[in-house]
Amino acid sequence: MSTSDFSKITVGVIGLGLMGGSFAKRFKEIGNRVIGINRTKSAEEEALRMGIIDSADPKDLKECRIVVSCTPEKATKAFLEENLSLLARDAILTDIAGVKDGFADIAESLILPTQDFISGHPMCGREGAGLSQASADIFKGANYIVIPRKSNRKENVALIEEMIRALGCAHAPAVTAHEHDEIIAYTSDLPHAAAAALMNSASYRKDTNRFTGGSFRDETRVADINEELWTSLFLSNRENVLTEIERFEAALETLRRAIEEKNEDSIRTFLSEAGRRRREWDSHGSSEYGSRERIVQD
Amino acid sequence: MSTSDFSKITVGVIGLGLMGGSFAKRFKEIGNRVIGINRTKSAEEEALRMGIIDSADPKDLKECRIVVSCTPEKATKAFLEENLSLLARDAILTDIAGVKDGFADIAESLILPTQDFISGHPMCGREGAGLSQASADIFKGANYIVIPRKSNRKENVALIEEMIRALGCAHAPAVTAHEHDEIIAYTSDLPHAAAAALMNSASYRKDTNRFTGGSFRDETRVADINEELWTSLFLSNRENVLTEIERFEAALETLRRAIEEKNEDSIRTFLSEAGRRRREWDSHGSSEYGSRERIVQD
Repeated sequence: MSTSDFSKITVGVIGLGLMGGSFAKRFKEIGNRVIGINRTKSAEEEALRMGIIDSADPKDLKECRIVVSCTPEKATKAFLEENLSLLARDAILTDIAGVKDGFADIAESLILPTQDFISGHPMCGREGAGLSQASADIFKGANYIVIPRKSNRKENVALIEEMIRALGCAHAPAVTAHEHDEIIAYTSDLPHAAAAALMNSASYRKDTNRFTGGSFRDETRVADINEELWTSLFLSNRENVLTEIERFEAALETLRRAIEEKNEDSIRTFLSEAGRRRREWDSHGSSEYGSRERIVQD
Repeated sequence: MSTSDFSKITVGVIGLGLMGGSFAKRFKEIGNRVIGINRTKSAEEEALRMGIIDSADPKDLKECRIVVSCTPEKATKAFLEENLSLLARDAILTDIAGVKDGFADIAESLILPTQDFISGHPMCGREGAGLSQASADIFKGANYIVIPRKSNRKENVALIEEMIRALGCAHAPAVTAHEHDEIIAYTSDLPHAAAAALMNSASYRKDTNRFTGGSFRDETRVADINEELWTSLFLSNRENVLTEIERFEAALETLRRAIEEKNEDSIRTFLSEAGRRRREWDSHGSSEYGSRERIVQD
């Protein structure tokens, strides 16, 4: 299906914050009709004014083949419990939550047998929050994890994958909820934990910013963290997060011991392997920001 | 002294790699006359062809009030031992090495009493290596640490600070060599160690790049590391680096324990403090890249 075919679909967006607003903006860019609703009317009115949604009338959700829920798990659950009748009989509901655990079971128990819940996790975002920070470009070249279940209709999974492609993402790897939670504990939870720990070192001072360059800047960027969201994510994915912190500590300990023992060869080997892996990570050009052309200060 | 006053000075650059080439490019942009020399003739010829140096004749170093050595410590020492007579009687020699230790003592023992060695550390750079990667923009908004000694003439220290301002840097904090090595163990050595450890986790897989976003990308950027240089830096600054790794591990352990004990308040407090510090770090706008406007994928 080409992007122009996908644009024929009417899509719904629940939650018009940074992520929901970005979905809406991008869908409008592609040419989809977009129904968008939000807890507060002000965001709906702003989205209408911006032209990134065509309607904020909940009754129009009935036109939507795909509905993207960009709200926390609890709110998605509450929406299904209270507003299921608003959805089309063949609607595909998808979410963007950062931990999958057993939510799909809950969602499936609430929707109709003719509907599908297909979980998703766009590995992209933007600093800040709210509709004013939304951007159609966040999906460009990004990864977007899909979690199809045996109970999902194949054509619905294919449609979600079309959506991901139309958004501009580079990859849509399909894994189980269990695998998802294991993997993103390494690729997302751990980097956030490490960034926070870097900032919280006893060595931090008010004038640290007079002595830093690009390495410190880039490694602590996500330390400006939404503490409610991430406390919840760390606890929801607790076992996997603990595993990843321990594995990270083990790797760091290898380097620390090599430095302590003045073992030049061991240090060199460690750093050489890190470089090899990083270049391998970057070799698929998985995001346009993998480019080496950026000027950085170090 | 304004930038236009600084441009009246003839400057020398020893070593025409990425950093030396960047200094030369920026000096030319400002309007200085630049004498540049390199171990290999090909880089000198390329620099002349690019118009980023005015002369590659070592005899012209005699015109230079400031000479920036952009080579490793050993090469700077060798240059002083073999070519001191090429320098002006009142020349100020400065370097860019990442660890200061006792090098200033060595340099001082080799130069004339009428000359000065004032160590420096520009906290900026660029991925890659070599003259082809040089850029005049790396200094913009960057930090550039200066290490004045009691034996340095005040007017020479002031001139180096003028140079740093003319390059476009935001801050030129002055510290002792000892303080420098302590501080950059946190601000530079540790981020490189952490980035390498992140890549070297047992969890890394060939397809990890299908599941990552901006946090992993940014935190592992410097893991594509020059293993010779960094093995040397880690060993040269060994005690301080070990201290910083231990402090980082202690901070991470605080978070790990809080997650293990399911202590929501402790996790939230930890993350909240990390956010507070990161915003404080960013509040002086210490680099143009401190801006939140950048679109990132997470």
